[in-house]
Amino acid sequence: MHSSMNNGAYDSHQLLSKVATNNGHGEDVEYFDGWKAYDNDPYHSSNNPNGVIQMGLAENQLTFDLVKEWMLKNPQASICTPEGIDKFMEIAVFQDYHGLPEFRSAVAKFMGKARGDKVTFDPKRIVMSGGATGANETILFCLANKGEDAFLVPSPYYPAFNRDLGWRTGVKLIPITCESWNGFKITEQALISAYEDALQNNVRVKGIIVTNPSNPLGTVQDKDTLKMLVNFVNDKRIHLVCDEIYAATVFSLPRYTSVAEIVTDMPHVNLDLIHIVYSLSKDMGMPGFRVGIVYSYNDRVVTTARRMSSFGLVSSQTQHMLAAMLSDDEFVTRFLDTSRERLSRSEEISRVVSSPNLLHLNPLVSGLSQVGIECLKSNAGLFVWMDLRHLLEEATTEGELKLWRVIINDVKINVSPGSSFHCSEPGWFRVCYANMDDETVDVALQRIRTFVRRDKRETKPKTSLKKRKEQMQLGRLSFNNRRIDESSLMSPHNLLSPHSPIPQSPLVKART
Amino acid sequence: MHSSMNNGAYDSHQLLSKVATNNGHGEDVEYFDGWKAYDNDPYHSSNNPNGVIQMGLAENQLTFDLVKEWMLKNPQASICTPEGIDKFMEIAVFQDYHGLPEFRSAVAKFMGKARGDKVTFDPKRIVMSGGATGANETILFCLANKGEDAFLVPSPYYPAFNRDLGWRTGVKLIPITCESWNGFKITEQALISAYEDALQNNVRVKGIIVTNPSNPLGTVQDKDTLKMLVNFVNDKRIHLVCDEIYAATVFSLPRYTSVAEIVTDMPHVNLDLIHIVYSLSKDMGMPGFRVGIVYSYNDRVVTTARRMSSFGLVSSQTQHMLAAMLSDDEFVTRFLDTSRERLSRSEEISRVVSSPNLLHLNPLVSGLSQVGIECLKSNAGLFVWMDLRHLLEEATTEGELKLWRVIINDVKINVSPGSSFHCSEPGWFRVCYANMDDETVDVALQRIRTFVRRDKRETKPKTSLKKRKEQMQLGRLSFNNRRIDESSLMSPHNLLSPHSPIPQSPLVKART
Repeated sequence: MHSSMNNGAYDSHQLLSKVATNNGHGEDVEYFDGWKAYDNDPYHSSNNPNGVIQMGLAENQLTFDLVKEWMLKNPQASICTPEGIDKFMEIAVFQDYHGLPEFRSAVAKFMGKARGDKVTFDPKRIVMSGGATGANETILFCLANKGEDAFLVPSPYYPAFNRDLGWRTGVKLIPITCESWNGFKITEQALISAYEDALQNNVRVKGIIVTNPSNPLGTVQDKDTLKMLVNFVNDKRIHLVCDEIYAATVFSLPRYTSVAEIVTDMPHVNLDLIHIVYSLSKDMGMPGFRVGIVYSYNDRVVTTARRMSSFGLVSSQTQHMLAAMLSDDEFVTRFLDTSRERLSRSEEISRVVSSPNLLHLNPLVSGLSQVGIECLKSNAGLFVWMDLRHLLEEATTEGELKLWRVIINDVKINVSPGSSFHCSEPGWFRVCYANMDDETVDVALQRIRTFVRRDKRETKPKTSLKKRKEQMQLGRLSFNNRRIDESSLMSPHNLLSPHSPIPQSPLVKART
Repeated sequence: MHSSMNNGAYDSHQLLSKVATNNGHGEDVEYFDGWKAYDNDPYHSSNNPNGVIQMGLAENQLTFDLVKEWMLKNPQASICTPEGIDKFMEIAVFQDYHGLPEFRSAVAKFMGKARGDKVTFDPKRIVMSGGATGANETILFCLANKGEDAFLVPSPYYPAFNRDLGWRTGVKLIPITCESWNGFKITEQALISAYEDALQNNVRVKGIIVTNPSNPLGTVQDKDTLKMLVNFVNDKRIHLVCDEIYAATVFSLPRYTSVAEIVTDMPHVNLDLIHIVYSLSKDMGMPGFRVGIVYSYNDRVVTTARRMSSFGLVSSQTQHMLAAMLSDDEFVTRFLDTSRERLSRSEEISRVVSSPNLLHLNPLVSGLSQVGIECLKSNAGLFVWMDLRHLLEEATTEGELKLWRVIINDVKINVSPGSSFHCSEPGWFRVCYANMDDETVDVALQRIRTFVRRDKRETKPKTSLKKRKEQMQLGRLSFNNRRIDESSLMSPHNLLSPHSPIPQSPLVKART
């Protein structure tokens, strides 16, 4: 096979674009490397019981029984069944970038229901895009200029935001530093600080993008924080993009508040500045179907984003099926209720544990707690934000990655290190649990218990709190310039070959 | 509803990006306006027999009976049937940007068959993208830099290339002027002229993009032309992108040659420069399914394009179904044969006409010929390139658009004027016919006949050949700066509202 790998880097830089040759895709982080470790040695209860357990994948597999049951009862919703095939041609040729009217209506309705029916969405403002990945890029293309503008994003944040928001748009991302002392809430002080730092560096801030519920924290933004953000963008005449793709995963109090609800009480606000990104990848657990939505209150953004949706339309086959499914009110209500119930594991756990202080009742959180590992209190998402700061040899990014390698290679669990999420404090890890059954969670917990006990027996002198704080400062300062350790486990050169021997490499997940 | 339309243009320019506020999407051309005329008054044989006939849409509706038959015989290919539902979850959660291995293999095989089995394609080089629209943008993002680089494109060319190739990438398109004297073939002289003009204007040419078969011409590139293009890019060390989305529509001689076939005989060529764009929108008639393919011989481009495919993955539901369908050799062979047969209308017509000189045997071409309207000799595509130069009052773009408005408003047929395709000679029109049955073609022909006879009776003094040639020069010179006439029929302001009363506005077709 012909290969361009013989070309030197300089040569390739000339031949291809800057986008192709820069590292703006951001795939060279441990977040993606962890997936590779899983792919090389995937856990299976009987076939490979010592394999790596995949807890790096924010996938919602808990409610497919309901979806399959609905599908079998509604064969007319598919163009591939005897009951639905008469629509095959009409749907196969449909390529209007407004989308099927019934699809937009159904999605608008579902968006309202997923937010507790506190607010309605206008089908005319529903713009399709290729997954949340495409939706996030689309809104950035609409709002900010390459090489000139920046968006602020509270950290820790989703690792692939660098790719989705910045790679091809050329828009810079600037973190708003959030910290553990207040549960990683966004403070006005941190926001102003990030904004003013940008100005001092001659970077024009065009907006803020916030995930609500937060990925990786699993927490919801409270009303006061949202109002603060809305007032800030209104004062500065910049944009607020709320990525709400986990809206329906809120399984307990405090109740979820969408920015759509907040702005109805703020008549002074210029709605041209407010935009929502949505998707069915998390709330419905269907990332493969690539349903991303841009919802904007700004007419020009709606028009422009719709034109851009030509680059990432949802397959009409999928639009047609989901239009029918999401229009079924009874199904949607049952689906959302069941999904929340299963995410909180409330049924099973209420028999075993009775701690009203635990927001999270799932076996993972309680099991971790039993071996002295706490998670950030959360009530949403498909993951928990696990605090392993006390297990670090040194409170630096290097220390965090060292521990992470032990977890991957010895404990054989793929969790994602906080540094991949641009977390300013070393020692936090995102652990996903909605992509597996309870038995697998139990195996993972057993491994963690064994590891923690062994670690304790080794009685290494752990760092003092004072020392740790000093190291944290160091870690934070050195974070941006850290060299990524490329062990043999995670050589990007292997990963990036188009001829990967692992056709379903998880590196390549479009969005998790 | 809140509206941003109250904001002045200046204000919006500040608030949104340059991409959002420039006109790089290129929707403000008659090509799109014609669709609007159809949408406002669509022809229907019984319900609206005086409506506008849609001949502006390159849609292939001729072979759906075969697809539906196959689907009913293969219910396991769908995740929505009792036979296939066990795969629902596995497919719904699949978001690997390599795509399903069986999908890539099936597409690679289909690409070979669609090109007459003269060449094979490597599944490892198959990169998914959201339709040809997304595939074309992806390859440009990989190869050229915003604001610095240009691609050469032979004219006439597909109107939405401006959007697909240039809008968000910021890459400039420069026409290679092709003319009627040699059947609009690309000459080396025209190529060199375009290339050198660019250099003189300090624009860096990064490559050439060629449609083969040509849209709008319906002709195939001959081997010598392809070799000339390959040698040119090899000499200059720039790229050749071949958009081959109409490969399987070649229904008669000369036989089709893909660039993939040409380069196998040119061992001196640096294959890192050669790239193919493909799609199932035309050859299979399934634009709604958004299957776009980037196929590159350059490993770095494969890697980069695959990372970009996160923005436009094909729905896993659709991948799964097509993987099964396109792996069925017997079906694919029958499908391709039948499709070609029906495109040439060879069966029906052989009984009526026996002219060996007519490459096109379809009723449209012969019917037009009977009233003195000739089409460019062609053997591919879903359209013909109709020569109405003799009907122009003046041989300018204005004259062409004047005639076009008569055709739309009085003859009530939506055809697409050559100026939308950046054709250098006024008076050519693209007429699509594969989106309708023979009866509708007959109605269209009858209307054209009536129009031509009425036009003759009016005995207006037609322009002399000499005058026409002078005007053509004028038309060519003024083309780039022409102001688009915005009649009430085609106000872009109506078109661009997100609140269009026409949810399926054809403006919004992602690709035709």
